[in-house]
Order: sequence, then structure tokens, then C-alpha cells
Amino acid sequence: MNYIEIIGFVAAFLTTAAFLPQVYQTWKTKDVSSLSLPMLLLFFIGIFAWLIYGVLKNSPSMIFANSITIVSSFLLVYFKIKYGKK
Amino acid sequence: MNYIEIIGFVAAFLTTAAFLPQVYQTWKTKDVSSLSLPMLLLFFIGIFAWLIYGVLKNSPSMIFANSITIVSSFLLVYFKIKYGKK
Repeated sequence: MNYIEIIGFVAAFLTTAAFLPQVYQTWKTKDVSSLSLPMLLLFFIGIFAWLIYGVLKNSPSMIFANSITIVSSFLLVYFKIKYGKK
Repeated sequence: MNYIEIIGFVAAFLTTAAFLPQVYQTWKTKDVSSLSLPMLLLFFIGIFAWLIYGVLKNSPSMIFANSITIVSSFLLVYFKIKYGKK
């Protein structure tokens, strides 16, 4: 693995890990008042496009990061819709 | 511009635009209770690493996206610290 991919994986771990506390905090508190649904939806679709881009560019770090982040962002959309109604 | 970069720019616009409603909502409401500071900080550093990765991979869409998102995520960190104290 070349040094460019090492930087990519550092970035991948950080941006992927960034979503875990948010997913956990949202799941735990059920407080979605300051989460924006438009943000979450645009982000989810955008991450899907980045995943395709990563596949086409043969970028292992982008494929890794976006595969995980797409699950995290899907969960946040789900929580926002589920808990936002109350 | 080849079709891979077009997909990249679609992704770039979506994930970049995703942060604007959040930044606006946070600035407007000053409600940062359900934003997680660890998430915001990890994300900010991760975006910085993706920006370096994009430069090294000569990816115009990644450079574009991450240059803008780094400003948005910096603003969210700033709001969280500023309004979180109250």
C-alpha cells in the first residue's frame, strides 16, 4: 500500500469514526431536534455517489470509508424520521 | 472532464450542500444539544486528511468538496463550543 492510500485510510478512519458518537448519542438520547433532515438525506445520497466514485477510481480507502458511512448515515435518517415525529 | 469526475462532482455538491442546512439551522437556533463535539472534531480532522488525499490523487472533485466542507465543519465546531457552554 502506497503512502497516498495510508493518508486515505487515516481520513477514512476519522470521518467514519466521526459518525459513531453521533449515531450512539442520537440512539441513546432520542434527541433529534438539532439534526437537520435535509442535511441527512443529501449526505446519504452524496455518500452513495462517493462510493461509486471510489469504485471507479479503484480507491480502497474511499470504498472502505463510504461503505461504512452509508450505513451510519442511513441510521441517522431512520432515527430522525422515527423520533422526529414525537 | 471524464464521466468519473462528473460522478465525483455530483457527490461533491451533495455532501457539501448537506452541511449548509445544518450550519444554517445551528446558527439560527443556537441549539447544539444534539450535536456531538467528538464527532465534529474527528470529522474536521478527517476532512483535512481527505483534502490532502484528493490533492495527491489529483482529484478535482475531492479537492473542491473537501475545501468547502472543511469550512462548514469548522463553523459547526465553533458553534458547538460557543453555544454549548450556555
